[in-house]
Amino acid sequence: MSSLTSTVKAMVFDTFGSVVDWRGSIVRDLTRWGNENGFQADWTLFAEQWRSMYQPSMEACRSGKREFTVLDVLHRESLDVLIDQYGLSKMTEAQREHVNKVWHRLDGWPDSVGGLARLKSKYIIAPLSNGNISLLTDIAKYTGLPWDLNLSTEVFRCYKPQPESYLGVCSALRLDPAEVMMCAAHNNDLLAAKNCGLKTAFWPRPTEYGPTQTDNLVATEEWDVVAKDIRDLATQMGV
Amino acid sequence: MSSLTSTVKAMVFDTFGSVVDWRGSIVRDLTRWGNENGFQADWTLFAEQWRSMYQPSMEACRSGKREFTVLDVLHRESLDVLIDQYGLSKMTEAQREHVNKVWHRLDGWPDSVGGLARLKSKYIIAPLSNGNISLLTDIAKYTGLPWDLNLSTEVFRCYKPQPESYLGVCSALRLDPAEVMMCAAHNNDLLAAKNCGLKTAFWPRPTEYGPTQTDNLVATEEWDVVAKDIRDLATQMGV
Repeated sequence: MSSLTSTVKAMVFDTFGSVVDWRGSIVRDLTRWGNENGFQADWTLFAEQWRSMYQPSMEACRSGKREFTVLDVLHRESLDVLIDQYGLSKMTEAQREHVNKVWHRLDGWPDSVGGLARLKSKYIIAPLSNGNISLLTDIAKYTGLPWDLNLSTEVFRCYKPQPESYLGVCSALRLDPAEVMMCAAHNNDLLAAKNCGLKTAFWPRPTEYGPTQTDNLVATEEWDVVAKDIRDLATQMGV
Repeated sequence: MSSLTSTVKAMVFDTFGSVVDWRGSIVRDLTRWGNENGFQADWTLFAEQWRSMYQPSMEACRSGKREFTVLDVLHRESLDVLIDQYGLSKMTEAQREHVNKVWHRLDGWPDSVGGLARLKSKYIIAPLSNGNISLLTDIAKYTGLPWDLNLSTEVFRCYKPQPESYLGVCSALRLDPAEVMMCAAHNNDLLAAKNCGLKTAFWPRPTEYGPTQTDNLVATEEWDVVAKDIRDLATQMGV
């Protein structure tokens, strides 16, 4: 590990699922908000369906069918579809905007803030997430994530796993790919980063999609680091 | 002031001169380094001449004569010219890179870290500087500037005072210009921001260019806030 800890200068993190618990946070937030505002729904299913529209909505941008559009807008389009499906169409515009911004109010996993603070003492740390700049900024303030800077893929006008995102980070930080480590709870994100020459670190979030999750329970490749969580990642990275 | 403190959501800061003392930091750093490495020069004049090449070097990019080029590269080109002028050409490539990176090792003014930490408790705070992403990241870590995110003009592929920089910030933060305050010790930066609809805050740095400075000693327009320094700005902004 010693050569890795002397080579790596920056560690960039997938955020949704890897650093913050989108599913639990949305269910908690919308359950409370629904009760206070007279909207009843199966908010767990609602959150999961909303998230299931995430990859298809970005794919239109990746494929070039649609120009790059920030995630806040994609989330809102998906939300409006769901609101119709759930018979919640009496929601006002202000209420829809509040609900859409639930993605700005996500809680970290218990080890995230402490683990990142340790890593920040030695490495440049930043999110590399498909969340837009404003969204990632709000999450960081809401949850207390101590990022050095914000590397939303919005900066590079593309969406992971497009190579331009990983290589854009290296260019912005003026580092070689081998000096940058992509850190995530998702094997596919790491594979795309590895193919661009970045170092990789994995830890599982076995309940990101709920108790019946089957994906990303274990490392599927020989990543440079396989950790239990972000605190363990900090330990393995020497801080 | 109360309507201002409820309207403004984000405060973005000019960095060189406004938040960090580039002149004093470079003189201290290069004097020590020169003594240790056998290079003698009038480092005060050297720093001032280097800085005087800053606006002309960016102007080639602003005018379209040259494609957007990050400041680290422009600084290095200017440095190589200066090294020849000062008869320091025995400097190795590694030494030149170390000297060029002095711009990554700038100290904050005494009120900067404390004032920014107070402002961060209520507002989104970020640099809006012509320093590139990597440069601003390194300064923040070196000096302890507690930015929420890094809004180098590199993100927008332009240089202040081009309107795309100020308007790019508003777009990235998904805020109206009137919800964003440009904060600087330079009247011309504020005027360009005001012309884009942003709010403005000024404080003087009367020794930024040394003891004989004549510019930017006072506010030349009715900015929304005129403060003594960043601590006073925090007080006036209600934190």
